[in-house]
Amino acid sequence: MKTRALPSPRGLGNRSDLRLYDRVATCICELIDCGTLRPGERVPSVRKFSTQQRVSIATVTQAYRLLEDRGLIEARPQSGYYVRARRWTLPPEPELYLPRPQVNHVRVRDLVLQVVRSSFLPNIVGLGLASPSPELFPTRELNRVMASAGRHAPHASHAYAPPTGDAGLRLQIAQHAIEAGCTLAPDDLVVTCGASEALNLCLRAVTKPGDIIGIESPTFFGILQIIESLGLRACEIPTYPRQGICLDELTHRLKRCRIKACLFTPNYSNPLGSCMPDEKKQKLVELLTEREIPLIEDDVFGKLTFTATRPKVCKAFDSDGWVMSCSSFSKTIAPGYRIGWVAPGRFREKVEFLKWTNSLATSSPPQLALASFLRSGGYEHHVRKLCRIYAENARRMTEMISRCFPEGTKVSRPNGGMALWVELPQHINALTVYERALAQKISIAPGPICSVKRGFQNFLRLNFGNPWTEEIERALVQLGRIIATAGAENSR
Amino acid sequence: MKTRALPSPRGLGNRSDLRLYDRVATCICELIDCGTLRPGERVPSVRKFSTQQRVSIATVTQAYRLLEDRGLIEARPQSGYYVRARRWTLPPEPELYLPRPQVNHVRVRDLVLQVVRSSFLPNIVGLGLASPSPELFPTRELNRVMASAGRHAPHASHAYAPPTGDAGLRLQIAQHAIEAGCTLAPDDLVVTCGASEALNLCLRAVTKPGDIIGIESPTFFGILQIIESLGLRACEIPTYPRQGICLDELTHRLKRCRIKACLFTPNYSNPLGSCMPDEKKQKLVELLTEREIPLIEDDVFGKLTFTATRPKVCKAFDSDGWVMSCSSFSKTIAPGYRIGWVAPGRFREKVEFLKWTNSLATSSPPQLALASFLRSGGYEHHVRKLCRIYAENARRMTEMISRCFPEGTKVSRPNGGMALWVELPQHINALTVYERALAQKISIAPGPICSVKRGFQNFLRLNFGNPWTEEIERALVQLGRIIATAGAENSR
Repeated sequence: MKTRALPSPRGLGNRSDLRLYDRVATCICELIDCGTLRPGERVPSVRKFSTQQRVSIATVTQAYRLLEDRGLIEARPQSGYYVRARRWTLPPEPELYLPRPQVNHVRVRDLVLQVVRSSFLPNIVGLGLASPSPELFPTRELNRVMASAGRHAPHASHAYAPPTGDAGLRLQIAQHAIEAGCTLAPDDLVVTCGASEALNLCLRAVTKPGDIIGIESPTFFGILQIIESLGLRACEIPTYPRQGICLDELTHRLKRCRIKACLFTPNYSNPLGSCMPDEKKQKLVELLTEREIPLIEDDVFGKLTFTATRPKVCKAFDSDGWVMSCSSFSKTIAPGYRIGWVAPGRFREKVEFLKWTNSLATSSPPQLALASFLRSGGYEHHVRKLCRIYAENARRMTEMISRCFPEGTKVSRPNGGMALWVELPQHINALTVYERALAQKISIAPGPICSVKRGFQNFLRLNFGNPWTEEIERALVQLGRIIATAGAENSR
Repeated sequence: MKTRALPSPRGLGNRSDLRLYDRVATCICELIDCGTLRPGERVPSVRKFSTQQRVSIATVTQAYRLLEDRGLIEARPQSGYYVRARRWTLPPEPELYLPRPQVNHVRVRDLVLQVVRSSFLPNIVGLGLASPSPELFPTRELNRVMASAGRHAPHASHAYAPPTGDAGLRLQIAQHAIEAGCTLAPDDLVVTCGASEALNLCLRAVTKPGDIIGIESPTFFGILQIIESLGLRACEIPTYPRQGICLDELTHRLKRCRIKACLFTPNYSNPLGSCMPDEKKQKLVELLTEREIPLIEDDVFGKLTFTATRPKVCKAFDSDGWVMSCSSFSKTIAPGYRIGWVAPGRFREKVEFLKWTNSLATSSPPQLALASFLRSGGYEHHVRKLCRIYAENARRMTEMISRCFPEGTKVSRPNGGMALWVELPQHINALTVYERALAQKISIAPGPICSVKRGFQNFLRLNFGNPWTEEIERALVQLGRIIATAGAENSR
């Protein structure tokens, strides 16, 4: 067999975030995935590949062993390594889910609290919450910056910040919003205790208990809980796994029920991972502006893109101030800092008042530290690195699911964010899987917490925001077994 | 004239928080106040006093000049210093204010926001907000502790804290609650973004919009705003300037209107500074428990006592879980950290859920820093020092008011906290005073923001939480002139 020249599709050089042998293994993976190396074909010899890629023989040997462990290649005595017959194919994607056009009070509190608490249990493999791992963050650098900010402005870091937030941080946020297509002044922004507080303030600014909020289906359980806690009702709008909410359905439902505000995650929605194209965002903003319905936009995942440039926000198309754009640093750099913000458009005055009554001001030291870190330019560099890791994790997790989960499993194909949305065969109950996984110290998010009326009974959300480890691989293998067993029981 | 032996009433030795000449001056002040040195009498000679107190002649000279500047003593050529004829006496206290027994929606938002914003203007003398000055806090020590916590637990300081808060911090808070008479487990507590968030969560846990909340009259405008922002109504209960709310009136109103919860500040209420005696607290808890009405207790000033021991909290008398006790570190050590807490009693589950939906978790680095600082024992030492300074500031501010404000002015006599409640002669409008003071770069809190219907038209709240400076003295002199002018205009 002729061995082809094997340029690494993405190259090894710029992937300094992975160990060297891991980068070699990834390179071979990609060659297999894209069909350059097909099942039964010989993988380049260790010696040849080490020369081609300018890495040591030991590194390539280690990489090949890793691929052998993962069942991707096999060693044949006296002959070399060969691509194994593929046991898995890229699974299909979930399809558009059409929730019944009902308006409902939300009742998921107990289930969600249970899932959240389970994620904080000791020695748990956390695939449940979309909580990024601090191991992937520049924690030392941030600590250094915070200490330095404290030294240079000892009083500012201990005094109340203004209710709208530190002016320096607001300036940085406004500057970073340019790449998302926004023209904002620092005074257009209100700093909040994470995006959670921002979403709360926005909803409280434009609704009263009993009002109806348009949301995506499926949607992030945190959003459902905020809606529940404020006594609001939800109208679930069908959402395409790739392109976000269905505008026709939205238009239809706007006519039929008095939707008071919409709360969407246009970029890398959670759990679906869908991303609305720009034209669609523009249409959405026009549709709602025309009807004077506020759009609360949750953009916490917008920067976590696997594509070349980050998608725009709906706020970029907002000429009349009806978009209230929320985001945070929680998914990109410092979950524990609890720093988010909102550009509340025409509702700024009201949001400022509510921020003041809700928590007076946001914690000062994290604000000063982030302002300083953003000024230094370290943020962009870090986020680019993080996106590469998440993209790779998403690929690996999809691969593991394909190999270990029962036939009929479907998986979303997000181009950003940090979660996969997994559809199991219809007869498998996600809550059973959740409980059994927890008994084996694996935490996952069962689908029913992502809808108003516990729909998505056979869905799971899996978080790929942690550094990839053998522990996670083992957990996914275990999870596959649990699902298969649950499936076998039910089909008996 | 015989010069008596002059032991310093409190001694100079243990007041290391003041400059030496300031301590000497304070000592003389106290001797004048307590009547040991009477108007017209000779003050001990510089030489004699320096020998008696074992300080330098220069120090005593500087102290006497300061007292001369303040108009307390006067130099007579060839003879020495004499106590001046007293131009002021300790002003009377405000009396019990009887608001009309009405239930009202609260509408103070715009006025309060205006007052808050004015406090953040540059070069303002801030007597308006009860925001303690970071200059009085161990900011360096706290910065050091925070940096060290970040180094020792780099991941913990960047990961989401559990929604209920860092376990180590909750342990420290539970231990510190012992002195307030409470027996709490760490799990009885939920850490919040300052006491503001705690009060919000408590109100949201036990009420729905339209419900009636019993509050003190006058009350902290922040509390009024929270009530307004949640769409609740308020029933103002008359409150004694020294002993807190009038229990008879409360009983009476409980019979007449459906009060859903009470929100009181039993220790050093704001703005009155009243402190309920222990027996009264016990009666209050019994009264409300019997009727199954939750008592939300705001204890942010409880530790800031000018007496030997801090007063107990109502929670100490709570046998049945109806007291939800809130406090924070904002008034004692680190306003900018935004760390508060609540012991929600029987409503713990609901408060935890609301905390999770409202802001997910509280910022991690400040939690870890405070836990470490509290463990070190530095907190108690710092608070004792702070209380001495506040007590002295209260005395000085009362004296300045007595000398500079028009006749008929009344002033509260708080035994703790950081505010004076000043009643001006009836015909003087506090809002006019507020505006004119602001034009002269002095921020004060006008009385009308402390009531539901803009009552207390001739009242002011003055914050004495800043380090005492000549700037503050000058501001009080200016304020006195503004008030006198406003009074003269109105009596024309």
